[in-house]
Amino acid sequence: MRATLYGGPGDITVGDRPDPVIQEATDAVVRVVLGCVCGSDLWYYRGQSPHALGSIGHEFIGVVDEVGADVSAINRGDLVIAPFTFCDGICVHCRGGWFSNCLNGGGFGNHGIDGGQGEAVRVPFADATLVTVPGAGFDEPTLASLLALSDVMCAGHHAAISAGVTVGDTVAVVGDGAIGLCAVIAAKRLGAERIIALSRNASRQALAQKFGATDIVPERGADAVERLLEMTDGIGVDAALECVGTGQSMSTAFGIARVGSVVGAVGVPHDVVVPIETAIFRNIGLRGGVAPARRYISELLPEVLDGNIDPGSVFDYATDLNGVRDAYRVMDERRAVKSLLRIGSV
Amino acid sequence: MRATLYGGPGDITVGDRPDPVIQEATDAVVRVVLGCVCGSDLWYYRGQSPHALGSIGHEFIGVVDEVGADVSAINRGDLVIAPFTFCDGICVHCRGGWFSNCLNGGGFGNHGIDGGQGEAVRVPFADATLVTVPGAGFDEPTLASLLALSDVMCAGHHAAISAGVTVGDTVAVVGDGAIGLCAVIAAKRLGAERIIALSRNASRQALAQKFGATDIVPERGADAVERLLEMTDGIGVDAALECVGTGQSMSTAFGIARVGSVVGAVGVPHDVVVPIETAIFRNIGLRGGVAPARRYISELLPEVLDGNIDPGSVFDYATDLNGVRDAYRVMDERRAVKSLLRIGSV
Repeated sequence: MRATLYGGPGDITVGDRPDPVIQEATDAVVRVVLGCVCGSDLWYYRGQSPHALGSIGHEFIGVVDEVGADVSAINRGDLVIAPFTFCDGICVHCRGGWFSNCLNGGGFGNHGIDGGQGEAVRVPFADATLVTVPGAGFDEPTLASLLALSDVMCAGHHAAISAGVTVGDTVAVVGDGAIGLCAVIAAKRLGAERIIALSRNASRQALAQKFGATDIVPERGADAVERLLEMTDGIGVDAALECVGTGQSMSTAFGIARVGSVVGAVGVPHDVVVPIETAIFRNIGLRGGVAPARRYISELLPEVLDGNIDPGSVFDYATDLNGVRDAYRVMDERRAVKSLLRIGSV
Repeated sequence: MRATLYGGPGDITVGDRPDPVIQEATDAVVRVVLGCVCGSDLWYYRGQSPHALGSIGHEFIGVVDEVGADVSAINRGDLVIAPFTFCDGICVHCRGGWFSNCLNGGGFGNHGIDGGQGEAVRVPFADATLVTVPGAGFDEPTLASLLALSDVMCAGHHAAISAGVTVGDTVAVVGDGAIGLCAVIAAKRLGAERIIALSRNASRQALAQKFGATDIVPERGADAVERLLEMTDGIGVDAALECVGTGQSMSTAFGIARVGSVVGAVGVPHDVVVPIETAIFRNIGLRGGVAPARRYISELLPEVLDGNIDPGSVFDYATDLNGVRDAYRVMDERRAVKSLLRIGSV
């Protein structure tokens, strides 16, 4: 099969990989329909985080091609969403709902498992990992929103859930990447009354507003903190969602969070220092992390199918496997929020 | 009146201060019955944190001597508990229950307000700040437990509440000071099934066990983490309560906390680095801070009066104002957990 291959920083090519086959009775082989490039893939692309050479990509939807003897909930021909990690569904962390921390799990495009930026993937623990999409005949915008459930929409939702966003809240979203934009969707869906998106990019500002942002703040760092405090009578926001993972974004989130609130943080941390004195003296908590996507997909899938949320709009660039280098490049250059890869047909 | 005076690191004396008088119509003047020395006073005593010269001490119970014209809930002759901070009860943070973050509040023994280690204190916003103890004729152990509600018992409770301790939990308490010991009481009261106290001091171990600790771990740092993980099948505890405020204690708490849990932190931070990668990759949260004592006193007071909890047992040294230097010294040398000061009669 053809698949995207990571050859080191800046080195993205398409090459051949062995066709995945059933290895364990709990496996499924999924033919990928849509894949995409994640903001975290850029860390590898830029050489800022390590990644094994070879297959890459951890977000995909596809059609089940084959299942192992012990797979019962997933059937050949099913359209499925893969969360960005596989999980056994029965370990102590899975039982607690923390599927992305499965003791026997791992990420796609790593740990010897093919990635979602290729034509097919062997999915371990298929019954526990995959979510079947009911219905058929979906248009591409809907398929794109289903793909967003694989990671970014669940990550944005995790930020909002972790921060305890509730009806009537004033929420600030730090970060205008795909996850930040999905956090706007999540905050709106959970009933936030005022949603302040921090963004200085016109097209991202527009998308944030489409998703429900009521205010846009282009400032960053200390200026953003000052602006947000002005906007909230000096009190701060009910929930600050940290969707970047840098020291500045974390510090901004703590600076704008009101006393007693919780910063919902889902950015993969790079040189992040938690301002512990602010946390302790202002009773501001920190929750979040790697989203338990498998848990959230069940909750968010009906919302996509009913047309209530439209996270697929974060994809503002689309190509196929032949264009995967450009898919990375446009994101690296911040010319696109998120790149979709059309790989197979439904 | 006579009061303890802070003259700089290591310099604790008893001297004269003007008798407090009503200055605002919302004030009360309280004649102190019992005061005490806090672990945080030791930071000043050791020169590790700054403190204004003069009056000191933020924990006390006493009898109301005089009230201002606008005070209605508190009456002359009432036995009252003072939380360690005063608060107006009506600002946005007080309305949210975060009384220790009152926009118009402050700490006793600071901000021009006398401390609890003296014969009398002017209490601002008396109606909102003070809690009247119903009944009369209390013995000294009960009075000591009422005094513990002023700060340390509420702080231990805040650690447990912040970490979400619930029925059946396995809880670890990092820190065997007065707050850590009170956190054992709080965890037990909230239904924890297994309570692991980290302590290498025989008398504190005994007190922890009296309060409900089921296991004692004398190791510290990486050894403590290893031991706790062994004791919990490699999974970690349901709730780790950080009651010290050092880098090592925070790192230990995150090291022993299970995936998806929350570290309840109430130690005043000194050189604390939150292990953010552990937090994000294991979905471990951080909550806590300066306890909203005024909120918790209402909840915990009946428990003291009914004899269900006995936080006054943390006082293992008692003296009067003349002995206040020794009260500090025995705590500084870790010969006592917490020093009680008998100042006036009920």
